[in-house]
Amino acid sequence: MKSFNPPSRTLMGPGPSDVNPRVLLAMARPTIGHLDPSFITMMDEVKEALRYAFKTENKLTMPVSAPGSAGMETCFANLVEPKDKVIVCINGVFGMRMKENVTRFGGQAIIVENNWGEPVSPEKLEKALSENKDAKIVAFVHAETSTGALSDAKKLCKIAHNYNCITIVDAVTSLAGSELLVDEWEIDAIYSGTQKCLSAMPGISPISLNERAIKKVESRKTPVSSWFLDLNLVMSYWNEGAKRAYHHTAPVNTLYGLHEALLILQEEGLENSWSRHQQNHEILKAGLFDIGIKFLVEEQYRLPQLNAVFIPEQANDEKVRSSLLQDYNLEIGAGLGIYAGKVWRIGLMGYASKKENIALCLSALNSVLK
Amino acid sequence: MKSFNPPSRTLMGPGPSDVNPRVLLAMARPTIGHLDPSFITMMDEVKEALRYAFKTENKLTMPVSAPGSAGMETCFANLVEPKDKVIVCINGVFGMRMKENVTRFGGQAIIVENNWGEPVSPEKLEKALSENKDAKIVAFVHAETSTGALSDAKKLCKIAHNYNCITIVDAVTSLAGSELLVDEWEIDAIYSGTQKCLSAMPGISPISLNERAIKKVESRKTPVSSWFLDLNLVMSYWNEGAKRAYHHTAPVNTLYGLHEALLILQEEGLENSWSRHQQNHEILKAGLFDIGIKFLVEEQYRLPQLNAVFIPEQANDEKVRSSLLQDYNLEIGAGLGIYAGKVWRIGLMGYASKKENIALCLSALNSVLK
Repeated sequence: MKSFNPPSRTLMGPGPSDVNPRVLLAMARPTIGHLDPSFITMMDEVKEALRYAFKTENKLTMPVSAPGSAGMETCFANLVEPKDKVIVCINGVFGMRMKENVTRFGGQAIIVENNWGEPVSPEKLEKALSENKDAKIVAFVHAETSTGALSDAKKLCKIAHNYNCITIVDAVTSLAGSELLVDEWEIDAIYSGTQKCLSAMPGISPISLNERAIKKVESRKTPVSSWFLDLNLVMSYWNEGAKRAYHHTAPVNTLYGLHEALLILQEEGLENSWSRHQQNHEILKAGLFDIGIKFLVEEQYRLPQLNAVFIPEQANDEKVRSSLLQDYNLEIGAGLGIYAGKVWRIGLMGYASKKENIALCLSALNSVLK
Repeated sequence: MKSFNPPSRTLMGPGPSDVNPRVLLAMARPTIGHLDPSFITMMDEVKEALRYAFKTENKLTMPVSAPGSAGMETCFANLVEPKDKVIVCINGVFGMRMKENVTRFGGQAIIVENNWGEPVSPEKLEKALSENKDAKIVAFVHAETSTGALSDAKKLCKIAHNYNCITIVDAVTSLAGSELLVDEWEIDAIYSGTQKCLSAMPGISPISLNERAIKKVESRKTPVSSWFLDLNLVMSYWNEGAKRAYHHTAPVNTLYGLHEALLILQEEGLENSWSRHQQNHEILKAGLFDIGIKFLVEEQYRLPQLNAVFIPEQANDEKVRSSLLQDYNLEIGAGLGIYAGKVWRIGLMGYASKKENIALCLSALNSVLK
């Protein structure tokens, strides 16, 4: 065994995305204790910077010490009580994972099925709610990473609230890449990842819960099944003001990286980051059109940061991706679920959403497909 | 908000310990995809190197993508089924956390109480088992981080097996610091951390399960309540040979760090690492004796890597620790649980177990206590 020196890739898949060298350097700073006063100051800055990214004033805004899937699980483990009826809108792989979460925590999942590649239908949600007036939670994915479809989170939340439901929203791929207004849209609980449009390294999941969601957590009749993800306990470590109690050892260096990534986001400005993702998507779109590649999702619902495109008929999926990786050090994503072998997912996320990457991708694809 | 530049501390608390600069540099290498063939090769090396550290041939030996508490939860979530009777031996904070895990997953915890600061009593375990012949699991902490007491894992496992119980062992603090022979002692399921005697950064938890444990997981009648930690799913990503299926995004850079830390362990040799921890403990012990500081744990049960010592009567706990941190950049650990305010925990873990650290600690303590 020798030291591992990874190849230098350009990451244009569904995440992780290319990490800004500033973030990599931040990761390499000396580890300090997770109860060190300097670290606690940094934690407070991370929380404040996450509020900026989420456009929220939610006090309970923090990074879960594990990947996005654990952020998802934190929301469901804390909010779903056994027998709770939860409306789960599915339009891709990550909606299915939400359903899996609901049933494992003892909830009853009512599924709102949507075609993969389309946004969640507000009409179907409304219908499901009118037929299930005892539902307590509505869950949906804002930006489906498996298909590249964007749903209207604002409208879906409004409908959910009309039926007195709490909303759980997956924003793993949307945070910092697409407009996302947690407070204005009244999203009750939201989780995201760090390895998409924030371009930090994978391993941490930012979450945010508003007072309505916290009230549901606090009024649980059964304990949260996960000790590690129990927000009542986690908060004793992350809570500002109060004396910090030890819960688990925070991933110190990964948080240095997230801190730097959030600083970079502030320097650019959140709205500018959204625009940049959109502008670069337009450039990629024009280029893909020129080489005859078609999008899975209708134009108005497309995510700028995750471009799912049909694999040309004459192309061999694995060979093309493998040639891009081996010959150009370029990673694009395979299809997932029902679209495995049918689409590629080209990410333009965070630091990787830039013209040189688009130029490389189009040129390399063009060569490999010839 | 500005870039975070942590102070340069010497970490002699209960973990995280000082991270070897080689590991920090490894963390800063460019992120690549978690399904990249190069990354998968590295994952296989990490698994093999963990087998070396655990002294096991267990196929299911891997790093969980979250801190030690999640490693603990992985073992309990997968092995404990509702109503399972689990004998939990408690001799400190982390035994209590095990109990918490058992009850949250619907198990029935039978407690074997031991004095904090003493090892788990084999006689008490035997008695509990003879009174609970339907028990299915025995759980205990090998090296109690809250007190610095080492239990006889070999003997406890033997007793458990005499009663047909599976064993779950917490080796968060013992791995690479104290003799630990997973296969020879027939430990069925074990979890550890990376931020103690491996001196990698916190955020990952190595685990290992033998065939007997896997059989129990596979024969569950109820699904594992956690999707994120469900070993049946996680293994589809970590399994050698099989085609890797996406489960969650692995913490790529943190795994680079762990890979480098495990390489450093191989270079030193596992047995040499155990000896070094013991030798440095002896030096610290002699120095503490000279300044009149007494150990909590009886000599024969003391962990070399975690020295819990009584706070001298005239000393102010917080003032001393704060002065060590502010004036000497030296972190030692506070007491935990019933020993909060009564003991300090001086870590000599991994890269931090070296003579210069002992010299600094003794000299600084001597000055601050005057």
